[in-house]
Amino acid sequence: MTRRIGVALCAAFDLPAIYADAFAAEGLDLRAPDALASPEEASFALTFKPEPDAFAPYPNLGAVIGIGAGVEAILACPSRPADAPLIRQTDADQADQMAGFALWHILHWHRRFDLMLAAQEQGDWLTGAGGLRLAHVDGAPWPGPSPRDFPVGVLGFGFLGRRVAEAALALNYPVRTFSRTAPEPLPGAEHFHGDALADFLSEVRALVAVLPHTPATERMLDAALFAALPRGAVVINIGRGVHLDAEALTAALDSGRLAGASLDVFDEEPLPSDHPFWRDPRVVVTPHAASDATARAVARAARAALDDLAAGRASPAGLVDPAAGY
Amino acid sequence: MTRRIGVALCAAFDLPAIYADAFAAEGLDLRAPDALASPEEASFALTFKPEPDAFAPYPNLGAVIGIGAGVEAILACPSRPADAPLIRQTDADQADQMAGFALWHILHWHRRFDLMLAAQEQGDWLTGAGGLRLAHVDGAPWPGPSPRDFPVGVLGFGFLGRRVAEAALALNYPVRTFSRTAPEPLPGAEHFHGDALADFLSEVRALVAVLPHTPATERMLDAALFAALPRGAVVINIGRGVHLDAEALTAALDSGRLAGASLDVFDEEPLPSDHPFWRDPRVVVTPHAASDATARAVARAARAALDDLAAGRASPAGLVDPAAGY
Repeated sequence: MTRRIGVALCAAFDLPAIYADAFAAEGLDLRAPDALASPEEASFALTFKPEPDAFAPYPNLGAVIGIGAGVEAILACPSRPADAPLIRQTDADQADQMAGFALWHILHWHRRFDLMLAAQEQGDWLTGAGGLRLAHVDGAPWPGPSPRDFPVGVLGFGFLGRRVAEAALALNYPVRTFSRTAPEPLPGAEHFHGDALADFLSEVRALVAVLPHTPATERMLDAALFAALPRGAVVINIGRGVHLDAEALTAALDSGRLAGASLDVFDEEPLPSDHPFWRDPRVVVTPHAASDATARAVARAARAALDDLAAGRASPAGLVDPAAGY
Repeated sequence: MTRRIGVALCAAFDLPAIYADAFAAEGLDLRAPDALASPEEASFALTFKPEPDAFAPYPNLGAVIGIGAGVEAILACPSRPADAPLIRQTDADQADQMAGFALWHILHWHRRFDLMLAAQEQGDWLTGAGGLRLAHVDGAPWPGPSPRDFPVGVLGFGFLGRRVAEAALALNYPVRTFSRTAPEPLPGAEHFHGDALADFLSEVRALVAVLPHTPATERMLDAALFAALPRGAVVINIGRGVHLDAEALTAALDSGRLAGASLDVFDEEPLPSDHPFWRDPRVVVTPHAASDATARAVARAARAALDDLAAGRASPAGLVDPAAGY
């Protein structure tokens, strides 16, 4: 079988530098546009943030493969070939990374590592009595150290949200999940969907947002949503920056409605160095680091999808429904 | 049935203030020594760090109940009635707390939240390219974000260590465990015991020490142990301060043998405010906050043990083997 040739179309990253070796190991020849003999020889594209006219020169793209779990920038690209199947990443290892990242933030707020790290800078033991009553030190009725007293809510229940929910359940946090449609249930979790968002939010102490970017989810994390959470809840956004109304978040922190927030994604990335979130002690800022499909995983997924499509199998893993947006 | 009266014997905490209500709910009357009508009426003792002569006045103690998972201070007390069963805490909820606390530290080091938190103080996005390559920012060959590349070792495999191992497995970390004797195996984990300590250590990136305090475990975390770990490993001590050789830890951090350490327990608690660990960026100091059996859990365990003993059942939950030390 001849080597299948793909073209890398991305304004943000040098995709061949990251992925070409792994693709070669799968029998796929990934090239930058200027390394093709002719545009016709590209039979698939690998992309993340394509330029508006990125796809225009390539008449023979049988598949478009995104390197991330989210594909909104690819769907929005006007030159995307509408008849070429679009594949996103749905790698189990990436989901594990996302779950671990979310768990750090859940534990960080629940167990008040924010207070402990700040106290370390002052050489302050906090309690002076063995640490057994740490939960009381800030004078607020913060839940105790038992996970049973700190319900976790997962907003968005795709393959990433599901794994976050499983990981929180494994630590014996009570878990509730919300998605637009009714999913396959997760044993041990309480699921909400459709118009039950307020019900879902009403008992959530830590809200983990791992939403796809669709018109319906833009600025979903807004003042009304924060007001539906119990006072003192925390919000952890690991989906996309566009899900968050940043001004509403600051107001909710100022009013005490929210006790803290963890933000891994932003409208503008890198987050501008003068943005107030950087120096807000109530906010943990991380640089879009929650998860990253390995080059090997992306290459394997590409190979599997291209094989499926070549064999006439219509629904390869990760196939995007453009109408749903994921 | 008459209410059973217990005496609180502890130099560190006001036990009746913390536990009396929960004990009353279990039909147990917990009193300070000066609240007893006579020493004879105390039929059990609740304690944590007893004074040397604490038990001497009480001739009728049918059981001694420790409020912690570790009982070394009680075993070492010269006035402890040797014929009274000693009960320690083996509460599942406390084990969940311990597991979550350990997971925060494992994730903290694996995912380099130490670097991200320090970068936040500088308004520094770290990578400038979407954050996808965070693992490379410190210039060292740090493992990537997949849990599969960051093996966790659990040193001490009692009810707490077992739960830590289960939680790490749930996040798909490779887990190896070590204990003195061969335990009931944990599916998915690789177990080492006896003279296989060096084998166990040889592939551990994050070592979680959750050891009992016995003569054999004192200063077990020493230069030889650190030298048996892969270069760049991290050590998380959530057992007792006496397990750690603090000077050896500092030397191992200075030499780069260890990349970091998390310490929740110390020889002297509170850790003296001038101790260098407080301001060492390679060390996370927390105030003995890993877990805390709730008053309700301690009261229920006391009630269950006293009922078992009254009924002639010889092995109530949490019964300590003084020869083993746990």
